[in-house]
Amino acid sequence: MADKKKLVEQITARDVDFAQWYTDVVKKAELTGYTSVKGCMVFKPAGYAIWENIQKGLDKRFKETGVENVYLPMFIPESLLQREKDHVEGFAPEVAWVTHGGLEPLQERMCVRPTSETLFCELYKQDVQSYRDLPKLYNQWCSVVRWEKTTRPFLRSREFLWQEGHTAHATAEEAEERTIQMLNVYADYLEEDLAIPVVRGRKTDKEKFAGAEATYTIEALMHDGKALQSGTSHNFGDGFAKAFGIQFLDKDNQLKYVHQTSWGMTTRLIGAIIMVHGDDSGLVLPPRIAPTQCVIIPIRQKAEGILDKAGEIRDALAAAGIRVKLDDADRSPGFKFAEQEMRGFPMRIEIGPKDMEAGQCVLVRRDTREKLVVAIEDAAAESAKLLEQIQKDMFKRAKAHRDAHIWNASNYDEFKQIADEKPGFIRTTWCGERACEEKIKEDTTCTSRCMPFNDSEVPEGSVCVCCGKPAKKLIYWGKAY
Amino acid sequence: MADKKKLVEQITARDVDFAQWYTDVVKKAELTGYTSVKGCMVFKPAGYAIWENIQKGLDKRFKETGVENVYLPMFIPESLLQREKDHVEGFAPEVAWVTHGGLEPLQERMCVRPTSETLFCELYKQDVQSYRDLPKLYNQWCSVVRWEKTTRPFLRSREFLWQEGHTAHATAEEAEERTIQMLNVYADYLEEDLAIPVVRGRKTDKEKFAGAEATYTIEALMHDGKALQSGTSHNFGDGFAKAFGIQFLDKDNQLKYVHQTSWGMTTRLIGAIIMVHGDDSGLVLPPRIAPTQCVIIPIRQKAEGILDKAGEIRDALAAAGIRVKLDDADRSPGFKFAEQEMRGFPMRIEIGPKDMEAGQCVLVRRDTREKLVVAIEDAAAESAKLLEQIQKDMFKRAKAHRDAHIWNASNYDEFKQIADEKPGFIRTTWCGERACEEKIKEDTTCTSRCMPFNDSEVPEGSVCVCCGKPAKKLIYWGKAY
Repeated sequence: MADKKKLVEQITARDVDFAQWYTDVVKKAELTGYTSVKGCMVFKPAGYAIWENIQKGLDKRFKETGVENVYLPMFIPESLLQREKDHVEGFAPEVAWVTHGGLEPLQERMCVRPTSETLFCELYKQDVQSYRDLPKLYNQWCSVVRWEKTTRPFLRSREFLWQEGHTAHATAEEAEERTIQMLNVYADYLEEDLAIPVVRGRKTDKEKFAGAEATYTIEALMHDGKALQSGTSHNFGDGFAKAFGIQFLDKDNQLKYVHQTSWGMTTRLIGAIIMVHGDDSGLVLPPRIAPTQCVIIPIRQKAEGILDKAGEIRDALAAAGIRVKLDDADRSPGFKFAEQEMRGFPMRIEIGPKDMEAGQCVLVRRDTREKLVVAIEDAAAESAKLLEQIQKDMFKRAKAHRDAHIWNASNYDEFKQIADEKPGFIRTTWCGERACEEKIKEDTTCTSRCMPFNDSEVPEGSVCVCCGKPAKKLIYWGKAY
Repeated sequence: MADKKKLVEQITARDVDFAQWYTDVVKKAELTGYTSVKGCMVFKPAGYAIWENIQKGLDKRFKETGVENVYLPMFIPESLLQREKDHVEGFAPEVAWVTHGGLEPLQERMCVRPTSETLFCELYKQDVQSYRDLPKLYNQWCSVVRWEKTTRPFLRSREFLWQEGHTAHATAEEAEERTIQMLNVYADYLEEDLAIPVVRGRKTDKEKFAGAEATYTIEALMHDGKALQSGTSHNFGDGFAKAFGIQFLDKDNQLKYVHQTSWGMTTRLIGAIIMVHGDDSGLVLPPRIAPTQCVIIPIRQKAEGILDKAGEIRDALAAAGIRVKLDDADRSPGFKFAEQEMRGFPMRIEIGPKDMEAGQCVLVRRDTREKLVVAIEDAAAESAKLLEQIQKDMFKRAKAHRDAHIWNASNYDEFKQIADEKPGFIRTTWCGERACEEKIKEDTTCTSRCMPFNDSEVPEGSVCVCCGKPAKKLIYWGKAY
C-alpha cells in the first residue's frame, strides 16, 4: 500500500484545482512529454495510441461515406494564402513563416499550413472540369501549426494533429447536406466511441470559421462545467470557388462555381476524454478507444501456477478480441492497481492462489471500482460484457452530468448570476445581434457556443437575454477552453 | 477500342524513354497532382491509398518487435540541431528555416525537421534514468523536409512522408542487433509484400548517415537497371548519447551512455513499386498492397441480369476478404480494361451475357494478361488463389530480372565497359579506400551501393577493381536514383 500511495499522492484532486489535476493526469499517465520546442508537445506512446484509435474509428466512418484520403504539402506560398480575403485575415496573424530553404532566402515566403483550404482549392481548380468530376470528397490526416500565445497539452498547442476534410459539390444543397452529414459523423463518434454527449448546432457569425458561410459545431461539457468545441464543419458556399476560379461544366452546359465544405477534428479530443471521464485516481478511458482494455494483475505471482493461469486468462481474452495485457512486473499488486487506475485501463482482472483454488478470478471496473467474481472459464465472455456495460455507463454518467449543468436564464441578472455561480451551459433566447454577444463576453467571459439544431423553436414573445428586444434564436453560452 | 487507344496512347514506352514513361504513369494512374508549392507534390487518392497500405503492413511488423509509436514536434530549434557535429554538417545545408511566428520574429530560428534524431535524444535524456527504462523502442509516422534542388514524384521531393524509428539500448551489442533486425524487417517487407528483391548490406563510410557509426541499407534494382536505396538502418553507437548527455544507471551501479539506432522508410517505396513492376500499359501493383485487388467489368452491362450477377460476384469476393470493385460506369469495356491496366489493379473479372448463360466468368491477370475461365460459384476462391500466384510470380520475375543484371568486374577496364554498356549492379572487390570510391564515381557516375552481408568473403589474392591493391571488401556499385 505504501507503493500505491506513492504513485497516487502526486495528483491534485479535481475539486481542489481542476487545471492542476489535468496537468498531473497528463503527466502521470505518461500521455505527453516535455520538449524545448516552445508551445509544442511530445505525444508519448500512451497518448499517441489513443490518437491512433481515434484515427482508426473516424477514418472508417469517413470512408463509409465515400471519403478518400490524400496528402497535400505542409507549406502554403504567401500569395496562395492571400487569395481569399476573410480566410487570410483569420489566419495570417497566427502562422509560422518559412523564409529560407537551405542556405538561400526564398523568393516568396511560405507559411506552415494552419489549415489547407487554399491548397485544396488549387487542386480542385485543376481536377474539376465537368459535373462528372463531382463530388470530390477528400480528407487528410496531418499536423498543422497555429502560433498560439498560451498553450496547454492537447487543448491548445502550436502544432497539433488533426484531420481536415475538404469537399466540392455541384450544388449548394449537396454542400449543405455534406456539412451536416459530417457534423453528425463527428457527434455520433463522440457519443458512441468516446462516450461524450454533445450539443449539435450552428456557430454565430462572430464565431464562424474565417471564410465560411456557416460553421456547425459539436460542443461538449467538461467535468468542471467548461465547454469544449470538439469538432466543426463548415459550409463555404461558392466563396472559395469564386476566389480561386473553380468552375465546372454542368449537365445543362452552363459553367458554374462549385460549392465547398471543410470539417476537422483534432488531438484536442484527447483532452476532452481526460476532462469528461477522469477522476481523482487518474485517467478513465472509454473501452472502445482504450489502447489497453484490460490488465491482468496476479496476486502473489510467485506462487505456483499463478502466472500460468494468468497467462491462460490473457490468451482467452485476446482470442475474444479484447486488448489485454498481463502485468507480471516485479512490483506489488497495490502499485499495479494504482498504475492501472492512473492510466485509465477500463478494467482489471485479479487472480491469486485462493481464487485459483476456487476456479475463479475477480473483474474490477475502473469507472466504479465494482468487483465481480467470475469462473475462470467465463472470464473472457464476462469481460467482453463488462466492457460493453462500462462504455454505456460512462456515456450515461457523462450525459447526466452534462444535463445537470444546463441552466436556463430568462433575463440578464439571472444570466450573470448563473455565469458567476453555476458552471455549465447557459441556455437563453437571443436577438441575434453581435453587440449582445460582445457585451455578454465582456461582462461574464461567456462566449456563444452554438444555436442548437434540436431546440431551435423560439417561443412566442421571447426576448433577448441581454438587450430585452425580441428574440430570434435559442442559443447556448458557456465559458470555454 | 477507340476509347481504349485514347487512354493508352499517351504513355511513352519504357524502352523508349524510361524517365518519361515514369512521369506518364504517375500522372495517368492519378497517383500525384501538381501544386504551386515548389518541389512538393500532392498525393492523390490512388497514390495515398498505396502509402496507407504500406503503413499498415510495416506498422504491424514494427509492433510485433515491440516498437511503440509516438509523435514529436515538426520543428527543431537551431541550437538543438547543432548539438551533434556530423549530424548538423550533414543536414543544415538542406533544411527549411522558420524565422517568424505570427507577426513576430522568433528569438531563435527553427528548422522543419529533416529527421528527428535530435528531438528523440532530448526526449530520451529526460526519460532514461535507469537500466529499467531501457530499451526505448519508438517510431513515428510523419513528413519531413529536405530542400532538394531537383525533384521527382515519390523519388525525391522537398517534403516526403516516412517513418523514423529511434531506439535506445543499454549495450552496444543490443543496439547493433536492433539495427540489423529492423533492416531485415524492411527487407522482408519489400520481398514479401512489395514483391521487390533486395540486396542487404552495409554502406561505406562515405555513404553513411550523418552522425552514424554504421549505416545498413537495402538496395533494389529498377527495371532500367538503376539502383534505388529503399530503406536504411543506422547504428549510432554512443555518439549522440555523448553529445546529448543521455546516461543511465546500470545494474552494476555504473553511470553509462545509451547506444542508439534509427531506421527509416519513405514514400519513395511507391516509386520503387512503379519502376520494378510497371509496364507499357501502366502500373502493376502487387496484390498485397493494391488498394483495389480486383475490378469486375461487365460486358454489355445493360443486358438483363448482368449487373446483378456482377454484383453477386463482387459480394462473394468481398466476403472472401478481397478488395474488389464493380465498375458499372457508363463507359465501354475496352475503356475500363485500359483503365484497370493503367491503374495496376492486379486482376479483373469479365462477365457478359454468354458467360452468364454458361455459368462462368473470365479472370484476367494484369501482369501476364493470361485469362482463366472459371465457374461463377468458384470466382472468389479462384481469385484468392490467383492473387497469391500473381504475388509470387511478380517477385520471381523481378528477382530474375535483378539477377540477370548483376555483373562481375575484375579490373577497371572491365568495370568501365560494364558501367557504360550494361545497366545493373556491378559486383567487385575493393580496397576500402575512399579515393577509389571517388574515382569510380567521377569516371562512371557509379556510386557504392553496399557491402553485402551474404557475400562478404573476399577470395584470397583479390585486388581492388580500381587501384589494383589488395582487396578488403566485396561491394556492389551502381548508377542510382
